[in-house]
Amino acid sequence: MTTLNISIAGLGNVGSNLVKIIEENYHSISYKSSLNINIVGISAKNKSKNRIFDVKKYEWYDNPINLLDINNTNIFIELIGEEKGISFDLVKEALQKKINVITANKALLANHGNELFKIAEDNSVKLLFEAAVAGGIPIIKTIKSSIFLNNIKKISGILNGTTNYILSEMENSKSNFDEVLKDAKSKGFAEQDSTNDIEGIDSAHKLSLLSAICFGSKINFKNVDFQGISNIQIDDIINAKKLGYKIKLISTSELIDNKIYNVVEPLLIKQDSQLANVNNVLNGIIIQTDQLKSLFLEGEGAGGRPTASSIMSDIYDIYENNNNLSLGYKIDNLKDFERVDNKEKSISYYLRIYVEDIPGVLAKITSILNNFGVSIETILQMPEKSKNSKEVNKVPIIITTHETTHKLLKNSLSEIENLKFVISEVTFIKIDKSIY
Amino acid sequence: MTTLNISIAGLGNVGSNLVKIIEENYHSISYKSSLNINIVGISAKNKSKNRIFDVKKYEWYDNPINLLDINNTNIFIELIGEEKGISFDLVKEALQKKINVITANKALLANHGNELFKIAEDNSVKLLFEAAVAGGIPIIKTIKSSIFLNNIKKISGILNGTTNYILSEMENSKSNFDEVLKDAKSKGFAEQDSTNDIEGIDSAHKLSLLSAICFGSKINFKNVDFQGISNIQIDDIINAKKLGYKIKLISTSELIDNKIYNVVEPLLIKQDSQLANVNNVLNGIIIQTDQLKSLFLEGEGAGGRPTASSIMSDIYDIYENNNNLSLGYKIDNLKDFERVDNKEKSISYYLRIYVEDIPGVLAKITSILNNFGVSIETILQMPEKSKNSKEVNKVPIIITTHETTHKLLKNSLSEIENLKFVISEVTFIKIDKSIY
Repeated sequence: MTTLNISIAGLGNVGSNLVKIIEENYHSISYKSSLNINIVGISAKNKSKNRIFDVKKYEWYDNPINLLDINNTNIFIELIGEEKGISFDLVKEALQKKINVITANKALLANHGNELFKIAEDNSVKLLFEAAVAGGIPIIKTIKSSIFLNNIKKISGILNGTTNYILSEMENSKSNFDEVLKDAKSKGFAEQDSTNDIEGIDSAHKLSLLSAICFGSKINFKNVDFQGISNIQIDDIINAKKLGYKIKLISTSELIDNKIYNVVEPLLIKQDSQLANVNNVLNGIIIQTDQLKSLFLEGEGAGGRPTASSIMSDIYDIYENNNNLSLGYKIDNLKDFERVDNKEKSISYYLRIYVEDIPGVLAKITSILNNFGVSIETILQMPEKSKNSKEVNKVPIIITTHETTHKLLKNSLSEIENLKFVISEVTFIKIDKSIY
Repeated sequence: MTTLNISIAGLGNVGSNLVKIIEENYHSISYKSSLNINIVGISAKNKSKNRIFDVKKYEWYDNPINLLDINNTNIFIELIGEEKGISFDLVKEALQKKINVITANKALLANHGNELFKIAEDNSVKLLFEAAVAGGIPIIKTIKSSIFLNNIKKISGILNGTTNYILSEMENSKSNFDEVLKDAKSKGFAEQDSTNDIEGIDSAHKLSLLSAICFGSKINFKNVDFQGISNIQIDDIINAKKLGYKIKLISTSELIDNKIYNVVEPLLIKQDSQLANVNNVLNGIIIQTDQLKSLFLEGEGAGGRPTASSIMSDIYDIYENNNNLSLGYKIDNLKDFERVDNKEKSISYYLRIYVEDIPGVLAKITSILNNFGVSIETILQMPEKSKNSKEVNKVPIIITTHETTHKLLKNSLSEIENLKFVISEVTFIKIDKSIY
């Protein structure tokens, strides 16, 4: 029997479920693997809060830093979740004390990972983070072990459950963004301050970690372009459907000519693709490698039990005692890739242009696009009035283009937006036909 | 730099692609992981066959058994694929000589795995088989590492690319089984003797391995009930679609009241479920655990490169030098579960009954079902004649039932088949609404 002594800082939904699983599965775990998981200390802000387990069964520490002084601790589990502050201090000190660390904290690792992984390596301990990306989906281990000797070409995923729930629910209930967000907050699918989710920041944190292990790059959150979903209107979702697409917040990392392309943005993707069918709070990831045309994983991207399941997988990884590196690569081998200029990439676009409903409007717009070399694929001119329209004669024109660059598009849109019958800015969303 | 000396027996599509990947990715592999994969010997039936790599670059052995005499061999890779015979002898001798073994041979492991895994354990070497189940999908490692400390409740999958291609193609081209099988053979998606695929035997081999690592059971191929797809008619696929289902060959392993349920059979599953959307030669697997409502993996289930990718993952596993056991469990801990009596399980059924088109037929049939307590959910009485019908007045009646047992159903069908206007045996297929 091997005993692993663990301490836990942070006893919210994930931390509490972790304790619960260790209690519930104690016998099956020791039967399966001769592993005895021994909780040597716990800490959280509020001791008296009602929890799904009995805190009295464990040694309580008011200050989490004291958890690191417990003798013979093998693993410290950080579930406080601050982007720096106490989370950073705890993880750093634990690693320096040669204690393995498991964390679900993507913000911390996206911003300070290079420093922390280096400290882990220097002290010959692990800093594991399966729970930080895509909740219960074992994506980190899949990349770091199962397909590590492949050359990964591209990874695309839906990495945020809140935004995916909102987009799914907008489609199902034909409601606008603001209404659905309010509803999501009341149901607990969105936090009260949901900026990090809505604006793509949470996805960008996760993508910067995936990108590092897929391509052996330094973690560089600043290399990720991100954009959220707050400008998506229900009309866009309905129009996309008519055109054979769904709108999803997609995170993509790709190595192009030895430059890194890391982007989180709403995209129109084919409605029969696997990612288009990842619904509600689920997450999904597609990987393409030199050996695999496509490997797709889908599962719960958040929640107490799924996330705790990923922490259990990291505990098992430490029990396995393998020489797999925390980030896959030796830290000094990580490359500092230049970023692809997102604006140079050729791609198709979906455009929503609100205009006054007067004759000649469409001819004028198409002629401007044509002058800039932006080729039109389809035009949907809506007979009905837009749901969003309060003005009597405001109608949307929906256009999809053939592949063009961001620069050409922006130039043509500037001119279109100057037309006197064009109301408000033009909304444009990329169409990625390569995602399946 | 760590050098792993490997030898390979069998240089068909998978073996040749394995050599090719090791050549192509030599530099990226040593950069990523300080791993030097050194091919110390190769063997196949025919040396002069045209291959995608140059055999002259490697030591050739006419008799594969001599590969096991090469000094300092770390891994022997068995890709000959016989169910016993030379494959068994090679694997057994390699393990006895304390050489790790990697194989893609599901038939060998399904039938002789218990003996071979025991020999591996006794000699403290590994016998790995990621490539034996679902080609390029890393399902074995996912179960053995990532979710090993979960309690798995159920695993359901599409594990055979040939049958999935045939069912997909029947639907796409509205053709019958025999035509599509012929076409699949000409395209190389089915072998000339495709009995093992068509009749569900290949899926059953794979399922017996999955069941062992999911539930810690002894490998018991005889515990798997299997049934193929040769009785599925294009009419069934069309009718299923009208009812909101797709027909797929599903392999399921489940622990019910401490008994094992291992079944491969065609099922009607909901058409918006993930498994229903696994098309053509792809494989897909859904796992439910005590922590995860659903984890879904999809990818290429066969082919040279995907299968070789899984062999590479096993090589990497040996390089990682972890203490993960080949089958997850100590061999002496494996349980010998009793099997669930498949016939006792309550489930809904799809029935296809060919009758003479005369008045009163339907009333008679429904009254018999009613007498046996088999409750009807829907009836599709086809106005048009069946495509399969040569008789002028032969029409199909399609019935779906509420949940009932196999015994009640069979008894009612015996009586129905005795009716003088019922032509030929009644076809029945289970409807599994729990698969998503």
